[in-house]
Amino acid sequence: MDIIVLKRDATEEEMRHVVKKLESRGLKANISAGTERTIIGVIGDTSKVTEEEEDAIRAASGVENVVRILKPYKLASREFKIENTQIQVRGILIGGKKIPVMAGPCAVENKTVLTAIAEKVKAAGAAFLRGGAYKPRTSPYSFQGLGEEGLEYLAAAREKTGLPIVTEIMDPRDLDVIVKYSDIIQIGARNMQNFRLLLEVGSAHKPVLLKRGLSSTIKEWLMSAEYIMSRGNHEVMLCERGIRTFETATRNTLDLSAVPVLKQLTHLPVVVDPSHGVGKRDLIAPMAKAAVAAGADALIIEVHTNPEEAMSDGEQSLKPEHFEKLMAELKPVAAAVGREI
Amino acid sequence: MDIIVLKRDATEEEMRHVVKKLESRGLKANISAGTERTIIGVIGDTSKVTEEEEDAIRAASGVENVVRILKPYKLASREFKIENTQIQVRGILIGGKKIPVMAGPCAVENKTVLTAIAEKVKAAGAAFLRGGAYKPRTSPYSFQGLGEEGLEYLAAAREKTGLPIVTEIMDPRDLDVIVKYSDIIQIGARNMQNFRLLLEVGSAHKPVLLKRGLSSTIKEWLMSAEYIMSRGNHEVMLCERGIRTFETATRNTLDLSAVPVLKQLTHLPVVVDPSHGVGKRDLIAPMAKAAVAAGADALIIEVHTNPEEAMSDGEQSLKPEHFEKLMAELKPVAAAVGREI
Amino acid sequence: MDIIVLKRDATEEEMRHVVKKLESRGLKANISAGTERTIIGVIGDTSKVTEEEEDAIRAASGVENVVRILKPYKLASREFKIENTQIQVRGILIGGKKIPVMAGPCAVENKTVLTAIAEKVKAAGAAFLRGGAYKPRTSPYSFQGLGEEGLEYLAAAREKTGLPIVTEIMDPRDLDVIVKYSDIIQIGARNMQNFRLLLEVGSAHKPVLLKRGLSSTIKEWLMSAEYIMSRGNHEVMLCERGIRTFETATRNTLDLSAVPVLKQLTHLPVVVDPSHGVGKRDLIAPMAKAAVAAGADALIIEVHTNPEEAMSDGEQSLKPEHFEKLMAELKPVAAAVGREI
Amino acid sequence: MDIIVLKRDATEEEMRHVVKKLESRGLKANISAGTERTIIGVIGDTSKVTEEEEDAIRAASGVENVVRILKPYKLASREFKIENTQIQVRGILIGGKKIPVMAGPCAVENKTVLTAIAEKVKAAGAAFLRGGAYKPRTSPYSFQGLGEEGLEYLAAAREKTGLPIVTEIMDPRDLDVIVKYSDIIQIGARNMQNFRLLLEVGSAHKPVLLKRGLSSTIKEWLMSAEYIMSRGNHEVMLCERGIRTFETATRNTLDLSAVPVLKQLTHLPVVVDPSHGVGKRDLIAPMAKAAVAAGADALIIEVHTNPEEAMSDGEQSLKPEHFEKLMAELKPVAAAVGREI
Repeated sequence: MDIIVLKRDATEEEMRHVVKKLESRGLKANISAGTERTIIGVIGDTSKVTEEEEDAIRAASGVENVVRILKPYKLASREFKIENTQIQVRGILIGGKKIPVMAGPCAVENKTVLTAIAEKVKAAGAAFLRGGAYKPRTSPYSFQGLGEEGLEYLAAAREKTGLPIVTEIMDPRDLDVIVKYSDIIQIGARNMQNFRLLLEVGSAHKPVLLKRGLSSTIKEWLMSAEYIMSRGNHEVMLCERGIRTFETATRNTLDLSAVPVLKQLTHLPVVVDPSHGVGKRDLIAPMAKAAVAAGADALIIEVHTNPEEAMSDGEQSLKPEHFEKLMAELKPVAAAVGREI
Repeated sequence: MDIIVLKRDATEEEMRHVVKKLESRGLKANISAGTERTIIGVIGDTSKVTEEEEDAIRAASGVENVVRILKPYKLASREFKIENTQIQVRGILIGGKKIPVMAGPCAVENKTVLTAIAEKVKAAGAAFLRGGAYKPRTSPYSFQGLGEEGLEYLAAAREKTGLPIVTEIMDPRDLDVIVKYSDIIQIGARNMQNFRLLLEVGSAHKPVLLKRGLSSTIKEWLMSAEYIMSRGNHEVMLCERGIRTFETATRNTLDLSAVPVLKQLTHLPVVVDPSHGVGKRDLIAPMAKAAVAAGADALIIEVHTNPEEAMSDGEQSLKPEHFEKLMAELKPVAAAVGREI
Repeated sequence: MDIIVLKRDATEEEMRHVVKKLESRGLKANISAGTERTIIGVIGDTSKVTEEEEDAIRAASGVENVVRILKPYKLASREFKIENTQIQVRGILIGGKKIPVMAGPCAVENKTVLTAIAEKVKAAGAAFLRGGAYKPRTSPYSFQGLGEEGLEYLAAAREKTGLPIVTEIMDPRDLDVIVKYSDIIQIGARNMQNFRLLLEVGSAHKPVLLKRGLSSTIKEWLMSAEYIMSRGNHEVMLCERGIRTFETATRNTLDLSAVPVLKQLTHLPVVVDPSHGVGKRDLIAPMAKAAVAAGADALIIEVHTNPEEAMSDGEQSLKPEHFEKLMAELKPVAAAVGREI
Repeated sequence: MDIIVLKRDATEEEMRHVVKKLESRGLKANISAGTERTIIGVIGDTSKVTEEEEDAIRAASGVENVVRILKPYKLASREFKIENTQIQVRGILIGGKKIPVMAGPCAVENKTVLTAIAEKVKAAGAAFLRGGAYKPRTSPYSFQGLGEEGLEYLAAAREKTGLPIVTEIMDPRDLDVIVKYSDIIQIGARNMQNFRLLLEVGSAHKPVLLKRGLSSTIKEWLMSAEYIMSRGNHEVMLCERGIRTFETATRNTLDLSAVPVLKQLTHLPVVVDPSHGVGKRDLIAPMAKAAVAAGADALIIEVHTNPEEAMSDGEQSLKPEHFEKLMAELKPVAAAVGREI
């Protein structure tokens, strides 16, 4: 909390009460008595003021509003760390000049299909294999993923292709098994504010790909990154995957402006997922190019050899031949903004 | 999936392919060849078609769109069970003529304060004591709740006042301890699609209060209820607590139209939380009255003896005297719509 | 503009530049040099600072943010005028203890149907007849209203029933003809920021019913009221009619919390339109009751003798018998909150 | 209307009633009696079914829902006209391989500043000069534009630089004067559903740049284009400028996925306005590049020689030197997607 606006009819006593509160927390008050309102500027290290203390001031009688000027996240902020964070995963750099592409099926279905997809995306230039063994599904009657069996298939595909693995965690109780197999732990959009899960992966020694919640502000998203980092795990990448708006022509609205906004606010690498962002196969290529042009550090794209038989998200999966074409088309776009793919 | 719209230029072969898929799932196709589009009506029990199968049809070549007519939830639907579900908790009925009010602090802070609040809300006519021992907080640096100690204080307050307890679960690993102390398990808005947690409480023998997610549609909300019910726990109540919109004058936008919509779609009781819905003390009373007028079966309201010192959400907590006044004002509104409070 | 936050690395010179700007506008600067940020509190009558001047400060180098504390509207604000505005229309008071109900068809279709509806709603207790002669329709191929002929039918129905008329204006060129026939001029949601139209009705001598725009904040809405009032017409009522959100179960999301928020911010009467708010016949009655419980000063409801043949919005029109039933049910709700209907 | 879903308990008589309605409009009904629902597929030219007729069916008893499969717009649809529309303005092509950039101040302020800006953007490679003479402002107390005087300055700047002019119309009564001076008529976001204004420009012989409404769906936007085209003016370009969402880090959320979506649905050229889309100077360049990568046919960008003194939107205006740099950076991005700038 940094600025306190008093109500028009706040009494002298109410003002003194607020000032005393500030002083009891080691802060000083700078009072601007305007003709319409009295404003209290808070002097001192307000970054140590907790949310509760801020709420308490806001709830005090005579107070109209409290305006926080300082960002509520620290470790994740660009001010805390000026240079970009770069994350090394089995020799591949995320956050460097080169833009790695993570590709693979939405869900791991069986070993043969997965390996086939892995080989195809590897051949097309993908740097990571993505695939879900634990799947968040809207319906309890839908396929929920193969669990550890799926992780084994991912590991086998990595063995065969050399591609490191990205896979999603949904439950803190699965942390050990996922850490055992995966190279990057993904937190899905629906779990962006599953704070217990964030704390759990915060104590793991694995990079985390943190997807943006469907209706999360960029500030809340950075606070969730802060949760992970506060436990000591600083290898967090932020993945824009579309937000919920009134528009129904696309599954979500891919907020590409989040990319340059994040580049200003944080030192963490920014990933874009055009597949979930738009939810329709034909729209993925133009949005992948736009993401690169906007400054994305990595892409994550769904690819399936037979989208029609995919056990989830077939509608938004590229076929390997289209993925290969897209990879070729991305190269000049990356070059145009001083990057490589 | 119930209606399949083919693309304008879909071939005869593509159409036959889709029909064959349907037949392989025991369904029949009724083809309407319009001048502009061919539409396939699906005949048979489409409620058994899974999301994956629907996705597969949607991903098939020649298919423009798949329109689901039937609701994807079953156990939660009014069609499955026509009469209202009523839930008994220590002698108090939720979903009957009488509208129970759940009241208490946002977070349990210490034994003395909690007991004092419990006694006050009991005296004012509250039927349940609410209070969080595990708190979802946006910042890792904020007070996260007292944990089991908080549950003990809640139990002690129940002992003293006779008020049954509502408290939130955030982590499947806390289920046993919460079941041990609480009378109703609350799932918070941020966990509405924490599917593992839903399955977990689905196998508990305790009623569940399921809050609506910040950006969840009513359909998704009912699917989350279905998750819980699919495990055998049919005592679910749905709690509207405001959705995220562009408006910033209120913390959220309380969607009271969800009350009559739910009354049509489901047999489950509907609770309204005006405190989180608006986030400002002065707006709670009018919205609580509006909720009752709209047909709510229960209310949940934050009350604190000293909002200014509350460790969270002080800004939206009523003082006991205001809560007492509100309880008195709610009585004639309830009577006006044929209910009691 | 009231508070100016400087960038962390703002120079002494940049600060002096901003201070000089303020002084050139007759304002004084109160500088709070915090450890993290320097904040300039603006002292003096900032209500005369224009948007352009505020933008100019915001665009100045070294400035991170400008926070406006004072409301940008004046005539519409509760601070400007403490007592509620009451509007008299042909002997009916809007903004008093009694809650008038405006009822009638969405569009005026022909004289016989309109008169029949007018007589029915009059008998049921409506105080005004609503009906559109100029209709905003999404499609150019839809019925656009009868124009002046429709206004004549409205006047004839008023002649017969004594009900004053509410009808919509869409084009500044229609002002004279609408003023000639109508008792209240309605500005529709899509024209809430049609600033030329606002100025035009601002110079008319007729009360205005200003609907909220589909995605307008309450602040923007009040600014539009200010447009009308700035031209001298202070008889403005604000009509909540639902905002656009992600939810599709209802046509719009009726934001009833706008009612108590407006009651705090402005002295103008607040009307609620549950018909457009929900868009479905079965949901109108509960939301009309909720609107009254929330503190609405008036209601506007679509009624049609034959909704199935209505030329627009049939889906959300009540039949006269349902309207009559609703009017009876609203009476005890109004009484419960100290009002009459 | 193309598919009619009956209620579960619809009677035989209700079904026959609906079928008769369809037949009276020259359509045929294909009935699919499923185990759960009866669905009526409508056969025949449903594109002639008006909104009112669709509403009437929806309002009929026994009907649960009406699903429209066909697009409600015709002239604007890709199906109506397969090849891309190209618009010639004083020798400059919009919708071709080359991507013209429209640049200039938000508002025309005075002749000297405008001419200076025009010369700078011309030198940097802009193809059009933008500038508002009539300005929609949220506050009645803000600068509303110079009116015809501003148009004269625009014409003088065109004289000097050869750049054709884009300027906004707000009121149908200004059509003649704007047509006299301007080369492209802009309809602003707030007027996208000012249907009278759309009809008016529809009968003008000037190309129209139609901005997307703040909360308009792509379908509604195309319906507004249809309004203009229905009057005979087929030279319409669609300009994405950001939609309103819950995110506050940017002024609006620039929906770049609208670009490829529009490319599928319509033959009209697509323009992107990154300045209004993000509202912050530093974010404009990355989003302009992303827009080109996503397939935009033209860009419109705010440039001002002295953003700090701009009378509106200074915060989101580029300085000429930054615009020049951006133009240079856009060239390789355009080349990367097979375009030129």
